[in-house]
Amino acid sequence: MAQGQVTTEANDGLTTRQRRNRPILLVHSGTGKGKSTAAFGLALRAWSQGWPIGVFQFVKSAKWRIGEQTALEALGRLHEETGEGGPVEWHKMGSGWSWSRKAGTEEDHAADAREGWEEIKRRFAAETHGLYVLDEFTYVMKWGWVDVDEVVEVLRTRPGTQHVVITGRDPDPRIVEIADVVTEMTKVKHPFDTGQKGQKGIEW
Amino acid sequence: MAQGQVTTEANDGLTTRQRRNRPILLVHSGTGKGKSTAAFGLALRAWSQGWPIGVFQFVKSAKWRIGEQTALEALGRLHEETGEGGPVEWHKMGSGWSWSRKAGTEEDHAADAREGWEEIKRRFAAETHGLYVLDEFTYVMKWGWVDVDEVVEVLRTRPGTQHVVITGRDPDPRIVEIADVVTEMTKVKHPFDTGQKGQKGIEW
Repeated sequence: MAQGQVTTEANDGLTTRQRRNRPILLVHSGTGKGKSTAAFGLALRAWSQGWPIGVFQFVKSAKWRIGEQTALEALGRLHEETGEGGPVEWHKMGSGWSWSRKAGTEEDHAADAREGWEEIKRRFAAETHGLYVLDEFTYVMKWGWVDVDEVVEVLRTRPGTQHVVITGRDPDPRIVEIADVVTEMTKVKHPFDTGQKGQKGIEW
Repeated sequence: MAQGQVTTEANDGLTTRQRRNRPILLVHSGTGKGKSTAAFGLALRAWSQGWPIGVFQFVKSAKWRIGEQTALEALGRLHEETGEGGPVEWHKMGSGWSWSRKAGTEEDHAADAREGWEEIKRRFAAETHGLYVLDEFTYVMKWGWVDVDEVVEVLRTRPGTQHVVITGRDPDPRIVEIADVVTEMTKVKHPFDTGQKGQKGIEW
């Protein structure tokens, strides 16, 4: 349902216009499929609004290129060529972030993750993107690679209208607390349970 | 996790290659956000595989144009111009399907829905698409506008490798039974609960 019913009157002193332009923090958690996929689907909406999109994949291998990256980067090129939609940047931690001169090492994911978070902080301060997809960022917090209290503070005080989607299992309760929308994707049935193999176009 | 672990050995007499090319039926259900959004995210993957995509929106108003449509149709045009990715068709029931000469009426959603289903049956038979997004199709079944046993039979016997995603709340148990992947999106927290308004780029 695209236009939901507001079931409660807000009591926050904001005008409707202000509420309609409030920066949103979304969390996609749970054990099921669709956490990242729904985040990339949201990026489609952001693109059509002309918002600059920044995707930051924290755990996936750098060798791994998923179909969503190919398609969203194609939309980014379309923006460059025609002005339609918005620009798209896609960064993967893997073995070193693309903005970094130094190659990361397989051994120090923690340092790579911290470097990614430092870059995101700089971008929040500069209001670089309209939508940030922090893919699998819950694990970075869970494993103690970044300080959750600092993440909460940075998210709470980010300037302007910068929307953020965090994906991954087991989000920290402090993140859930400050999130505007939290959706849990629950696996009801999955082909891997019956020995089905992952397949291209569906799994990646 | 893009490459899942297979936890059970398959006992279906198929080779790995056959299993990797098996047509998949996915169901996105639940009361939370992300059912349709994740389906459109999946369409990004399908596009990058070069599969012809067919989106069929069964309930949304025809006047309503969501950002995902704008973005996926832009990818479809990119395919036409450069050959990259796959073609995209987006059809809305609203007040009459786009392939139909006659305008639908506000009063007869049931007839419009049946017409949509008849078209989808023809496309399955012709193997028109690699991915079908049947958005909010669970309601069409729930409200008795199409015969669920017929839908099950058509889905079970569809030829070739045609993947299907059905979205919506309360999927019929017979559909869940034949589905390969069922994910339930559960609302943990939603801004409408606290009087937040829907906003462009996030809700549509």
